[in-house]
Amino acid sequence: MKAPIPFIHRLNEDEERHWLSLLSQKLPDETILPLNKLSQAEREFADIAVVANPDPQDLECLPNLVWIHSVWAGVERIVRELDAPTFSIVRLVDPELSSTMAEAVLAWTLFLHREMPYYAEQQRTAVWQPIPYVAARDRTVGILGLGELGRASVAKLQASGFNVIGWSRTPKTIADVETYSGSEGLEETLKKSDILVCLLPLTSETEHLLDFERFGFLRPGARLINFARGKIIDDEALLYSLNTGQLQHAVLDVFAIEPLPRSHPYWTHPNVTVLPHVSAATTVSSASTIVAQNIRNYRYLNILPKTVDIQIGY
Amino acid sequence: MKAPIPFIHRLNEDEERHWLSLLSQKLPDETILPLNKLSQAEREFADIAVVANPDPQDLECLPNLVWIHSVWAGVERIVRELDAPTFSIVRLVDPELSSTMAEAVLAWTLFLHREMPYYAEQQRTAVWQPIPYVAARDRTVGILGLGELGRASVAKLQASGFNVIGWSRTPKTIADVETYSGSEGLEETLKKSDILVCLLPLTSETEHLLDFERFGFLRPGARLINFARGKIIDDEALLYSLNTGQLQHAVLDVFAIEPLPRSHPYWTHPNVTVLPHVSAATTVSSASTIVAQNIRNYRYLNILPKTVDIQIGY
Repeated sequence: MKAPIPFIHRLNEDEERHWLSLLSQKLPDETILPLNKLSQAEREFADIAVVANPDPQDLECLPNLVWIHSVWAGVERIVRELDAPTFSIVRLVDPELSSTMAEAVLAWTLFLHREMPYYAEQQRTAVWQPIPYVAARDRTVGILGLGELGRASVAKLQASGFNVIGWSRTPKTIADVETYSGSEGLEETLKKSDILVCLLPLTSETEHLLDFERFGFLRPGARLINFARGKIIDDEALLYSLNTGQLQHAVLDVFAIEPLPRSHPYWTHPNVTVLPHVSAATTVSSASTIVAQNIRNYRYLNILPKTVDIQIGY
Repeated sequence: MKAPIPFIHRLNEDEERHWLSLLSQKLPDETILPLNKLSQAEREFADIAVVANPDPQDLECLPNLVWIHSVWAGVERIVRELDAPTFSIVRLVDPELSSTMAEAVLAWTLFLHREMPYYAEQQRTAVWQPIPYVAARDRTVGILGLGELGRASVAKLQASGFNVIGWSRTPKTIADVETYSGSEGLEETLKKSDILVCLLPLTSETEHLLDFERFGFLRPGARLINFARGKIIDDEALLYSLNTGQLQHAVLDVFAIEPLPRSHPYWTHPNVTVLPHVSAATTVSSASTIVAQNIRNYRYLNILPKTVDIQIGY
C-alpha cells in the first residue's frame, strides 16, 4: 500500500480546494489529503508531503518523510525554522512563474521608466507638465539575482531595449549582459543602476544586504523594485534613502512582516508603491502539473528533483 | 541662390533651438531660420518649410511653397485649417517614434493588466488585498489603427504574450493577428476587447468615433487607452461609461483641448489616468535626421517623400 500524501498549507479555502482538486486529477494513483484527514498510522507512513508555507510543527508529526515539495519558489522560512531536517526539500521551479515574474519586472520597470509616479502626482494637483523622454537604451537596469527569475527578467528587459546589468553572489555568465559578483561587484552594480531590481533568495548572506552603506552607492535619484523578500532590505536605511532623495522611488511587493502592518510608514510614503505580494503569484494549473510530474518521477523512476541546499538556503 | 527654409513652430524656446541647431548641422548646404528672420523677398522665394503645429496664417505668407514637412506625425490641424492648399504636406514617419509609442502602449497596457490603478487605490486606504492574476494570454487587447504606430504596438504586445486583435477603417492584413475593418468590424472589436487602445489619425471619419453607442459595445469592466487624439472620443460618452462601470478605467494622453483645462472632470475622476501628451514625444535627434534626409532627397534627386492625402487626412 502507498502512503497518502499530506497537503500542508496556510492558504485560503478556495486555493486549498483548487490545489487538491488539480493534484488529485493529475495524480489518479495517489491519495492527496489535508494533513488533518490523515490517521496517526498514515502520518507515520507518509514519505512525501506537498507544502505551502507550513508550520514546522506540522512536519514534525511526519517522521518518515523522504522529501517535501514546496509549491512556492521561496523556501527560506522552512529552511530557517527546521533544524537539520531528515528529509529533502524541493522548491517549485515553474517556467510559468518565471515568465509571470519577468512580466512584473518589465511592468514596474516601465512604470518607473515612463514616470508614472510623477504623472500621478501631477494629476493630483491638476498640473500639466511633461518631462523629457529618456530612451530605454539610456536607462541601466541592475538585476540582483541571476537564477531562473533573474534570467527571465534580464531577457524581457533587453527585448524592450533597456541596458541591463546583473549581479549574483557567485560569478555567473549570461550572453550579452555585463555581470558582476561578490561584494565589490555589488558596489559596481549599485553605482551603475538607474533602476535596481531585487530578485535574490533570502538567506543568511542576503538578509539586510541592502543597508545604509549599499544604498549610499546608488546614483542620486535611482529607483528600486523589491520583488524578492522584505528582509533583504534594511527598512530604516531604505526610508532614509527615500527621504534624502538618494532613492527617488521604491516599488515594494514584499515586506519583513506580511501583510504590511497598517501603521507602517511605507503605506503613506509619497515615494513608495506598496503591492500586496502580487509580482508572481503561483499559477495553480501550471504549478500542479510540475508537482505531479515530480511525484510521478519519484514513485515510478525513483528520481528526486533538484533539492534545496540547506547550507546556502535555496 | 537657394531659398532659406523657414522653421515655423509653437514649441518652447529650448526645443526650437534644439531643432534649429540639429537641422543646420545635418543640412550644411541649407539656411534654416525661424519665420520672423526671413525678409519679405525670402518669404516669397521659400519652396520648403519645416513646421510644428503652425498657424495657418504663417503659411499664407509663403506663396511659393512646394511642400511642408511636419515634424509631428499628426497633421489633422493643418489639413483641417488649410483650405485646398497649393503645396503638399509631408508628415513625420519616424521608426523611433513608432518604437516609443509601442513602448508606451505596452507600458500602460501592463499598467492596466497588472491592476496598478486598483493597487494604488488599496494603498491609499492601507488595504492588503491581492486579486487573482490573469495571464496576458487571457487578455484581449484591441488596437484601433493599424498604421506604423499600430503595427509596432501589435508586435510589442504580442511579444509580451497578449492576445491582440486590430481594427482599421479599410481592411488590412497582419500575420498572426485577427483584423477587422469597417463599422461592423469595429463593433466586433469593441465586443472582444478587454483593453482597447486608440491609435487612429483624427479625420472627419474618426471624430467622435467612440461615442455612446460604441462604448455600449464594450465588455463590462473594459479599459481604454487613448494615445491618438482627444477628439476621437466623445467626452460625455466616456464619462458616462466610466460612471456606469461599463468602462473600468481610462488612460488619456490626449484631449480635445490641450493642456487639459484645470476644471475638467478628468483630472479628479478616480478611474481616469491623465497624462500630459507624453506617450510618444518626438525624439529631436532621430526626427531631425529624417527631415534632413527628406529635404536632401528633394534638393538633389527631386524626390518628394510620401505626402498626406488631403481627402483622407493622413
